[in-house]
Amino acid sequence: MSGLRETALVDPPAGDAESRLHEDDHDALRLWLRLLTCTSLIERRIRAELRERFAMTLPRFDLMAQLERAPDGLKMSELSRRLMVTGGNVTGLTDQLVSEGLVVRKRVPGDRRAQAISLTREGRKVFRTMAEAHERWIVALMGGLSPGERDRLYALLGRLKRGVAAMPPQESS
Amino acid sequence: MSGLRETALVDPPAGDAESRLHEDDHDALRLWLRLLTCTSLIERRIRAELRERFAMTLPRFDLMAQLERAPDGLKMSELSRRLMVTGGNVTGLTDQLVSEGLVVRKRVPGDRRAQAISLTREGRKVFRTMAEAHERWIVALMGGLSPGERDRLYALLGRLKRGVAAMPPQESS
Repeated sequence: MSGLRETALVDPPAGDAESRLHEDDHDALRLWLRLLTCTSLIERRIRAELRERFAMTLPRFDLMAQLERAPDGLKMSELSRRLMVTGGNVTGLTDQLVSEGLVVRKRVPGDRRAQAISLTREGRKVFRTMAEAHERWIVALMGGLSPGERDRLYALLGRLKRGVAAMPPQESS
Repeated sequence: MSGLRETALVDPPAGDAESRLHEDDHDALRLWLRLLTCTSLIERRIRAELRERFAMTLPRFDLMAQLERAPDGLKMSELSRRLMVTGGNVTGLTDQLVSEGLVVRKRVPGDRRAQAISLTREGRKVFRTMAEAHERWIVALMGGLSPGERDRLYALLGRLKRGVAAMPPQESS
């Protein structure tokens, strides 16, 4: 996460003309830092809960979440793509989960070189338990917002998301 | 970032009683996944822009951002704490920045074992250029929202943040 912090903007150095921002720029940056702060705070809680309750890391949980939605298994390359990490990382995570009996590698029929990864029966059971707890944590962490506020936040983030998607890369140069 | 994706919730498997969520839980999880999606999308853009325009990584940019706000320099331990990464990573990032002449290590007066890290004059100049570009990108990426929408989003995220901070760890068990 970004080392730029929300608090860094609260009290900008007086008289520093170079660092003084146009009001709108300031708002946009402050909003981004708050978005980042919220995401980091929640993610950190989730990491801590997964570690303390299930001795599980977030990357391994994420990997299992991908497999849970792919009953036929996923090829390593597809798994890497979905998790947006390097192949090396996925290999290491998979090795760990295999050694714990939660995940299994299988030959892909008709492709001698490829392997598909899938959850074992035990892996599926463990994942479901974790996923249910994960949801309870999220519900509790979102508890500061009323249902109406959650709806409005969801809608505003939808607009933000569409705006980002609509902006071609390097638009801002 | 989480491998759970927003789209995964759009069309839950019909008849899967175990995976069926209470309406409110569903909303909370969907909101979290959208928050995560927005943050990831923006962060990915920022990473790409930093890489393409300045051959800079986000962790190195973040490290420089911390140093920019500490004119007297920061001890390694303090820098690690602020960046929330392991000492090893900060050491590697610092080594890289030192070799590029952007950062310098200095002895801390009165503490023979400690070193303080600070930006060089060149580092400060390079950082300012990058920080200005970074702000333009953020302004552009937030462009899908009107000023009023940005204000409302900022306020709602503030409530979310306070709610998360107010929730003791393991509340949700």
